[in-house]
Amino acid sequence: MEQRLSLITLGVADLGRARTFYEALGWRSPTDPADGVAFYPSGGMVVALWSREAHAEDSGVADGGGWGGVTLAHNVRSPGEVDEVLGEAERAGATIARRGAETFWGGYSGVFVDPDGHPWEVAHNPGWRIADDGSITL
Amino acid sequence: MEQRLSLITLGVADLGRARTFYEALGWRSPTDPADGVAFYPSGGMVVALWSREAHAEDSGVADGGGWGGVTLAHNVRSPGEVDEVLGEAERAGATIARRGAETFWGGYSGVFVDPDGHPWEVAHNPGWRIADDGSITL
Repeated sequence: MEQRLSLITLGVADLGRARTFYEALGWRSPTDPADGVAFYPSGGMVVALWSREAHAEDSGVADGGGWGGVTLAHNVRSPGEVDEVLGEAERAGATIARRGAETFWGGYSGVFVDPDGHPWEVAHNPGWRIADDGSITL
Repeated sequence: MEQRLSLITLGVADLGRARTFYEALGWRSPTDPADGVAFYPSGGMVVALWSREAHAEDSGVADGGGWGGVTLAHNVRSPGEVDEVLGEAERAGATIARRGAETFWGGYSGVFVDPDGHPWEVAHNPGWRIADDGSITL
């Protein structure tokens, strides 16, 4: 197995609502809404939105109904940009689970939760380098 | 917010067990096990393993205790490679939730579930292009 992730799919209750949320953050999908799924190319991988019910069945797992141990992170280039992205997410309808603040690991971050309960940490990690295309180097 | 994912963290019950599983699949982390976290550089983003309990608290969410609507996917270049990766995961201790088979979307895939309940779809999608570095183009 190569050391890479190709696609991450977030189960959602209402695809239209979920698309509206991510598109308010500036994300764009080439997928036809009639397809019942939305693919967002993200660097060399893809973030997808799909019916959580169909997704549980397709994954062969029982749905625990809440958070399942997975948090996404969006790293940015400064503490100020953390606060900007959190504000943008809040205006788009996210819940703020944790306001921007200094972290125990020496960075600055906060967390927003999307309309389907998926948390995103927005983080500035001074020890990680972000290239112009957004890719991360440890 | 830029259209990209920097990091995905999978909550685990036992970091040593989780590292052993992913490392049996050939993944390598530069992180010191004493740090209590493992970072796996994966293309331009990072897959991390961290205590699920600490992760829930840090994310500001209640742990539903099961699957939370997120499935990862590892796309490969042929149906045969799907079966190879599923076999490799099973030998490393994964549960096979769905054996490799043709899918409703015209590809071939199966699902393994890691020791902490995180499902990975291993997929061949004839409509997606995988570059030599593993990056995906829709």
